[in-house]
Amino acid sequence: MDKMSTDALPLAMSSPEKRETVCIFGTGDFGRSLGFKMIQCDYHVVFGSRNPQASSLLASGAEVLSYAEAARRSDIIILTIHREHYSFLTELTEVLNGKILVDVSNNLRVNEHPESNAEYLAQLMPKAHVVKAFNTISAWALQSGALDASRQVCVCGNDSKAKQRVMDVVRNLGLTPLDQGSLLAAKEIENYPLQLFPMWRMPFYLSAVLCVFLFFYCVVRDVIYPYVYEKEDNTFRLAASIPNRVFPITALTLLALVFLPGVIAAILQLYHGTKYRRFPGWLDHWMLCRKQLGLVALGFACLHVLYTLVIPIRYYGRWRSRNATITQLMTKKENPFSASSAWLSDSYLSLGILGFFLFVLLGITSLPSVSNTVTWREFRFVQSKLGFVTLILCTAHTLVYGGKRFLSPSALRWYLPSAYILALIIPCTVLAIKFILLLPCIDRTLTRIRQGWERDTAAVKPAVNGKSDI
Amino acid sequence: MDKMSTDALPLAMSSPEKRETVCIFGTGDFGRSLGFKMIQCDYHVVFGSRNPQASSLLASGAEVLSYAEAARRSDIIILTIHREHYSFLTELTEVLNGKILVDVSNNLRVNEHPESNAEYLAQLMPKAHVVKAFNTISAWALQSGALDASRQVCVCGNDSKAKQRVMDVVRNLGLTPLDQGSLLAAKEIENYPLQLFPMWRMPFYLSAVLCVFLFFYCVVRDVIYPYVYEKEDNTFRLAASIPNRVFPITALTLLALVFLPGVIAAILQLYHGTKYRRFPGWLDHWMLCRKQLGLVALGFACLHVLYTLVIPIRYYGRWRSRNATITQLMTKKENPFSASSAWLSDSYLSLGILGFFLFVLLGITSLPSVSNTVTWREFRFVQSKLGFVTLILCTAHTLVYGGKRFLSPSALRWYLPSAYILALIIPCTVLAIKFILLLPCIDRTLTRIRQGWERDTAAVKPAVNGKSDI
Amino acid sequence: MDKMSTDALPLAMSSPEKRETVCIFGTGDFGRSLGFKMIQCDYHVVFGSRNPQASSLLASGAEVLSYAEAARRSDIIILTIHREHYSFLTELTEVLNGKILVDVSNNLRVNEHPESNAEYLAQLMPKAHVVKAFNTISAWALQSGALDASRQVCVCGNDSKAKQRVMDVVRNLGLTPLDQGSLLAAKEIENYPLQLFPMWRMPFYLSAVLCVFLFFYCVVRDVIYPYVYEKEDNTFRLAASIPNRVFPITALTLLALVFLPGVIAAILQLYHGTKYRRFPGWLDHWMLCRKQLGLVALGFACLHVLYTLVIPIRYYGRWRSRNATITQLMTKKENPFSASSAWLSDSYLSLGILGFFLFVLLGITSLPSVSNTVTWREFRFVQSKLGFVTLILCTAHTLVYGGKRFLSPSALRWYLPSAYILALIIPCTVLAIKFILLLPCIDRTLTRIRQGWERDTAAVKPAVNGKSDI
Repeated sequence: MDKMSTDALPLAMSSPEKRETVCIFGTGDFGRSLGFKMIQCDYHVVFGSRNPQASSLLASGAEVLSYAEAARRSDIIILTIHREHYSFLTELTEVLNGKILVDVSNNLRVNEHPESNAEYLAQLMPKAHVVKAFNTISAWALQSGALDASRQVCVCGNDSKAKQRVMDVVRNLGLTPLDQGSLLAAKEIENYPLQLFPMWRMPFYLSAVLCVFLFFYCVVRDVIYPYVYEKEDNTFRLAASIPNRVFPITALTLLALVFLPGVIAAILQLYHGTKYRRFPGWLDHWMLCRKQLGLVALGFACLHVLYTLVIPIRYYGRWRSRNATITQLMTKKENPFSASSAWLSDSYLSLGILGFFLFVLLGITSLPSVSNTVTWREFRFVQSKLGFVTLILCTAHTLVYGGKRFLSPSALRWYLPSAYILALIIPCTVLAIKFILLLPCIDRTLTRIRQGWERDTAAVKPAVNGKSDI
Repeated sequence: MDKMSTDALPLAMSSPEKRETVCIFGTGDFGRSLGFKMIQCDYHVVFGSRNPQASSLLASGAEVLSYAEAARRSDIIILTIHREHYSFLTELTEVLNGKILVDVSNNLRVNEHPESNAEYLAQLMPKAHVVKAFNTISAWALQSGALDASRQVCVCGNDSKAKQRVMDVVRNLGLTPLDQGSLLAAKEIENYPLQLFPMWRMPFYLSAVLCVFLFFYCVVRDVIYPYVYEKEDNTFRLAASIPNRVFPITALTLLALVFLPGVIAAILQLYHGTKYRRFPGWLDHWMLCRKQLGLVALGFACLHVLYTLVIPIRYYGRWRSRNATITQLMTKKENPFSASSAWLSDSYLSLGILGFFLFVLLGITSLPSVSNTVTWREFRFVQSKLGFVTLILCTAHTLVYGGKRFLSPSALRWYLPSAYILALIIPCTVLAIKFILLLPCIDRTLTRIRQGWERDTAAVKPAVNGKSDI
Repeated sequence: MDKMSTDALPLAMSSPEKRETVCIFGTGDFGRSLGFKMIQCDYHVVFGSRNPQASSLLASGAEVLSYAEAARRSDIIILTIHREHYSFLTELTEVLNGKILVDVSNNLRVNEHPESNAEYLAQLMPKAHVVKAFNTISAWALQSGALDASRQVCVCGNDSKAKQRVMDVVRNLGLTPLDQGSLLAAKEIENYPLQLFPMWRMPFYLSAVLCVFLFFYCVVRDVIYPYVYEKEDNTFRLAASIPNRVFPITALTLLALVFLPGVIAAILQLYHGTKYRRFPGWLDHWMLCRKQLGLVALGFACLHVLYTLVIPIRYYGRWRSRNATITQLMTKKENPFSASSAWLSDSYLSLGILGFFLFVLLGITSLPSVSNTVTWREFRFVQSKLGFVTLILCTAHTLVYGGKRFLSPSALRWYLPSAYILALIIPCTVLAIKFILLLPCIDRTLTRIRQGWERDTAAVKPAVNGKSDI
């Protein structure tokens, strides 16, 4: 029967004697998809099943045998069975000793079991070489060829030869193996496919809450207030004018929140007089998702730019400009060129353009492939120096935008100040604290703390941590 | 002579005793360029040649000897000769046994020979260790240092120690070796440099055809028709107005074509009642170049955005706005603010901005370094969920743009409808079918099929593919 | 005491018997930060110190012993001491023989010592296995978890097993090891963290000089000249109008400078009749930073686009358009539509849009992850073919912008021509030479030279470099 199925196969590029046999335990969806793919890539596939008669289900060219028979045919056995059923493998200990067992299983929850599935398998079968692989690939992707995202297969295992052979199989399937080291890494690899943007959640929810709050704030000021007092129908503002108020405020606030944790951390370090004390958990988490916060802020900034550039095309913009001309002509008012207005408008736009430009630069350097090619010093330079310049430019953009209207009582509606004033609260706070921290006396202490100096033990230290240690 | 040439060399950073000798067979352009680069990187290079007297041609510091003599000097022999001439190596079998032979050859056509050049070499010289490397690097790039694209050198070979040594040579030349596994990979590595954007061809031709067709369609409607009936000279529209009609239509149509194959595949799966049947070839190819289709569509969308934002700067835009003001003043018509026009214009622009923003996001996630850092679940979420929202937003943008003019008879010219109506055909079809597929009863069946359920064998299956298999 | 500190530790995921002991020599900032991180990742850390009593300083859970005692506890000894103090290790030769010594040291200057620190250590301790690692990671980043840029740890060493073990440690700390080959690579790895954008410096300074020069040129023409002759206050132009003149000129000049070295190189090759002669140093350096030049040019082009799109929103833009309408009404002039003005304005904008679009495409393909996925042929196609089309489009954009004003005497102010004319000098020169080089007779010679043909030895060559060599 072996021969027959071999003959039935289309002979691909390589000659038949080269064909390697791989055994797959389990005939579920993933097992069959993987088998199908392997047959396409010119492997001879033997399925191990409790019920070998039902071979009709499987891809033509594959055999289905009992577990023990199938395992005897190949050095590599891929287990596409759930962890709960691993115990039956102990009956096959003799056959499986010395073979390579590939664990592809996943869990339903992060850290579902105390040890990873692969480590559990290695404890069950101490004489087999357990390799973790393929769990980050989906059955659907394997079959449809839609593997854009997941060409990378994380592989780990304690036996380096076994790992190497599995990595060769991965390569032959057109995928990219990533050596993740020993079986200790299996836990992380098993948690990997369960996550859905874990670091993006906080920035996402935060920006959603900010947007909703600001939207209603602007609706009250710009739609309801004029309707109540002047019977004006301003509902059309919901479509573009109010978004173009909400988005820049959200962007600037989120950008400031990127720099706030660094400032808080510096204050904590100054307060404790050491850098060797852990930050509270919330601050740690906040610091870890700064990149995501910044990218969400950049997204809102992009929307703000698009909404702004579109103003002269909008019906409202065209109507207003036409009306201004006509009114001026009707009232026969002079329209002298006001240099101060030109200065205000141009510098406000220039600050915005330069701030946005640097912001996009920051976004580009946070692309994984770009940040991998810069050194730590370069990255720090871009992210902290350029980041602060961006924050300063964007805050100045908002301040100049306000111009003379800033906090004038006529701008208050129902005691609510203009929305852009809300945008300035956090950035100005962050910048103020940052400038205080840059005062020479404070900056010197902070630098020493960050180089390992500790206030409490300063007297003892020089003896221990001499100039000889890094 | 050996000593002399060594002394003549500038002593680079490492001391002379460290200098490794590498032998290069063949003094063609690639051989000489590689030798030149190796001498720069402080290797001692010995060329093997049929005609060793003609050493004047080679970089100073290199020796030229007969093949056999040169091969004796080094463990590593790089063969820069064409495959057709490999047969002469059999004369040198004794000298080459146990040595590392590096095959750098390329072919003129994809799959030119039944087996790869490196495998052919390994058959000729079974006792040498054949390693495939350097074939993806160009001689010109090696010499000019313009190696931005090609720092990566794919290396494969059956002997891991030999491969490791070649990878060290690659690293010392300032290049990045990529271990591609055993010599079986040589075939793919040899085909690699021959391709020129293979997956981009279909999207490119398709968009070119679409653009040309739409361009002439718009010329007929917007230039020839007014000329024939109103003697208007509208040729200036060729420069910017018509491109800004052609580009958005092409973008939307291509975006819809990204989602059409997925919809067709779902219908086929429902029809056959299984996912284990292969799709027809054209559908497979279409599904594989969806990413490229989407990126081409994004390019056209970007052009559309730029052309639109530039409208108020164009002479035509300025002239029209001035004219509108003057006409209104002349005719002394009232110009009350029309809230419905403002709504229409603002919501049309808002839909466009949001659609474009999501489209750019999709484009960013398809960058290799970004898609490598997201899990399969995250990628699927972004590409399918966000992708459909993008398609819906862009289709709605076009629908609202049409507004009241939609299919009004006055818009017909020579029975040709407005061009934007053509843009709606495929997107609306795709969205309609997609919504039908999302109906609970159909969606449930489709989900089961994609999890491995098969209609024809549904009765037998539960016994075989129990809950134990993945 | 060993036991106690173990009990005091929180038991992480893995069981206590798995915990590996790592020894760190030196209790400086980096040593302590690394120890802290390793304890978090469930290692048992033993510090070696001259003064083991001062253990209070260290992270709880770590022991501090004398150097010799600490070294006996572990196979892996991480040296966080300065190179100048390595000599004391010779006293410990017996204990350290056969152990893995990890060198993490950095220098203060590029190529500070004749050999790398790791090679110096290997000479001192010939029987230990020296591995270079961790030097690209900062202590601050290790502790704060802000490891976005520096997850990659370059590892090199002569003993592959020792290297493998260190790479496993790196992986367990959540970092990504990069195998850089043998200890010869240590020199480069030690220089790596010292660099701050080395290839960006020339483009950066060049563009700064260009910007400053053009800024003052424009100030003289657009602010001082009108003030002197017409007493106009044009200072508001400093904020947006002049930047929008300076940026596009800088962008176009830098873009032309990207292509100039290639043209010079071709002339040199034609002159020398060979490609095997090295280019002068300045040309080599120029060719190597072409990518950076191009990206800086792209940045200025983006700024130009933003400044241009913002024109109709600026107070000046709105004032001018209102004024034009009013003036026309007042003077009761006709305002017929000028098709030629429309053509000029539209084609000028279209050329700019298409040029900018291709420029952005070029920028995207220079992202490391994108350029890694294209072959050399594809990269060359994009960078040279598309690059020249971009240069042609952008030059044409500037030429058409000038339109009829080009070199008209009325445009001269104090004999200074319009600034945009300066922008055309280098691009036009480059394009002119390039077109000459593309003449069939010259192109043929150049192609032959680039394929290895040499003018001086053309008579001898065919015999030597037959068709058999690549």
